[in-house]
Amino acid sequence: MTVPSSPPVGAASGGTGGGRRSRDVPTLVARAREGDARSVARLISLVENDDPALPEVAAAMASHAGRAQVVGLTGAPGVGKSTTTNELVRALRAAGHRVGVLAVDPSSPFTGGAILGDRIRMQDHTADSGVYIRSMSSRGQLGGLSAATPQAVRVLEGAGCDVILVETVGVGQAEVEIASLADTTLVLLAPGMGDAIQAVKAGVLEIADVFVINKADRPGADATYRDIQGMLALGERGPGEWRPQVVRAVAVKNEGIDDVVAAIGKHREWLESTGNLQNRREQRAAAEISALALGTLRARMGDLRGGAALPALATRVANGEIDPHAAAAELLASL
Amino acid sequence: MTVPSSPPVGAASGGTGGGRRSRDVPTLVARAREGDARSVARLISLVENDDPALPEVAAAMASHAGRAQVVGLTGAPGVGKSTTTNELVRALRAAGHRVGVLAVDPSSPFTGGAILGDRIRMQDHTADSGVYIRSMSSRGQLGGLSAATPQAVRVLEGAGCDVILVETVGVGQAEVEIASLADTTLVLLAPGMGDAIQAVKAGVLEIADVFVINKADRPGADATYRDIQGMLALGERGPGEWRPQVVRAVAVKNEGIDDVVAAIGKHREWLESTGNLQNRREQRAAAEISALALGTLRARMGDLRGGAALPALATRVANGEIDPHAAAAELLASL
Repeated sequence: MTVPSSPPVGAASGGTGGGRRSRDVPTLVARAREGDARSVARLISLVENDDPALPEVAAAMASHAGRAQVVGLTGAPGVGKSTTTNELVRALRAAGHRVGVLAVDPSSPFTGGAILGDRIRMQDHTADSGVYIRSMSSRGQLGGLSAATPQAVRVLEGAGCDVILVETVGVGQAEVEIASLADTTLVLLAPGMGDAIQAVKAGVLEIADVFVINKADRPGADATYRDIQGMLALGERGPGEWRPQVVRAVAVKNEGIDDVVAAIGKHREWLESTGNLQNRREQRAAAEISALALGTLRARMGDLRGGAALPALATRVANGEIDPHAAAAELLASL
Repeated sequence: MTVPSSPPVGAASGGTGGGRRSRDVPTLVARAREGDARSVARLISLVENDDPALPEVAAAMASHAGRAQVVGLTGAPGVGKSTTTNELVRALRAAGHRVGVLAVDPSSPFTGGAILGDRIRMQDHTADSGVYIRSMSSRGQLGGLSAATPQAVRVLEGAGCDVILVETVGVGQAEVEIASLADTTLVLLAPGMGDAIQAVKAGVLEIADVFVINKADRPGADATYRDIQGMLALGERGPGEWRPQVVRAVAVKNEGIDDVVAAIGKHREWLESTGNLQNRREQRAAAEISALALGTLRARMGDLRGGAALPALATRVANGEIDPHAAAAELLASL
């Protein structure tokens, strides 16, 4: 099977792809496995654009599943995710890791998620062949980010990355989804961004394996630290359960980053020693399979009667002629 | 059809339901239409718990579709959404509206989204029979929030509310989804919560009909105002397109709230005069129908082989035996 000769390129925001076009998947996969950055970029573009060749890419990458530790990194806008990611990459590289970074933007389905900031902020690492950095959007992806992200992770695993940072903006359902796709989830907080009850509201207590209190040199950092520790103390944990670590950092000054790396390593050890690594990966695979299958079903529903079935039902619902449940039943009946 | 005698009640966080249990949907609907708060609360609990009686509730409510203006209100944690909602309710009540409030928490699928803060913060209005206030989670809802929220909106419409505020925490995909369900979307910002590029990252430029710069008495408010106006000036808009309004407020002092109400009214006039109100409602109905249909399909997939099919495929994917696309195809084939 060959890659279509003129695939959509609009969503390819990573910047390292393009140029010469490799025409067949086996060649691309072979080159990616040798560490060729252009081929890696090209494969991730296929994922982003939901290319018809994706099943073939996935099949070629299947045997590399589970080699890397996938580290999710999330937090509200303004807490310093970009800077922290940047410094983590530096520290992980210094420790000899090959590192992949996926900067995922689930919140901008309209623009495709590519903004100037993502392109420029990582320039420290662009000359380093042991780092792949990529902005991703879910535009066009059938199953959304929960399908696209693990596929991109698999490409990076195939390219030899052993740590993959998945950075997501904001705090919300998408982040929780992505947390469920990570082996280890870091939640960034910053003093003055809202107190501990806001963290509870945002649902981060449940998803965080490591809390990073960034900008820890600012007023209020100690209060934030105490609030989080207090919240964690309230939670009941059985023997052998992971107690989330709380780490203070000032990423912009490269302070505390080694502690973050240590916490990530400690969590990895816990995952392996308890069997939770396998559990999480099976859950991740289940989520991915579901997302892909539902994406296919969604597309089939959208295509019914040449795309006219759903809008016609929607008009009848908006006009109060039928209710949405009846409309959904009608749609399913014609599937 | 009757409501089951022992429905799950864990997600019923609104506090006004419970007690005497109404056993049949027509009675509940009739009472809700007369403005009985307990019946409204009970119906929303049915929505939250994805009760088997939901299709019947939906059918009874269908003819009330589209009577209320649905106003989404979103923003990062800490910008003052709760306070702003509270003051908006006060102003809308003073103007003679019947108001419904859905405080939606998409980010906490684990806890069900009910936290103390939501229960206590609205106590100003608990004695006012012209206001329904309800915390909602998507727990148990087949189609998630994109299915549950419009169903709850329909219940409130049926109860005579003509303005329904849907408040969501955080900024992310869930918020964008909810924005697509609203007639008018307010995005709250606050000085010092991150600059304009963060707003772009969070995808809010595309979804906001009205920007509210809250805490406008704080340092940096003017810079935030200018940044947003500058971003809006960059966007291309055709003739007749809506230009998002930017309003300054200090909700905690009740300053600028009337301006927010005026902006909401202005947007409503624009929606009606341009035909966009009908368009948005048809899109909303389409999203709701899709979500319900996909929820049903997800449940069917989960039930395959007594619930064993998906986990078995997931294990094979996690172990690198097959790829997720092949697994998804296998799952669909057995559907």
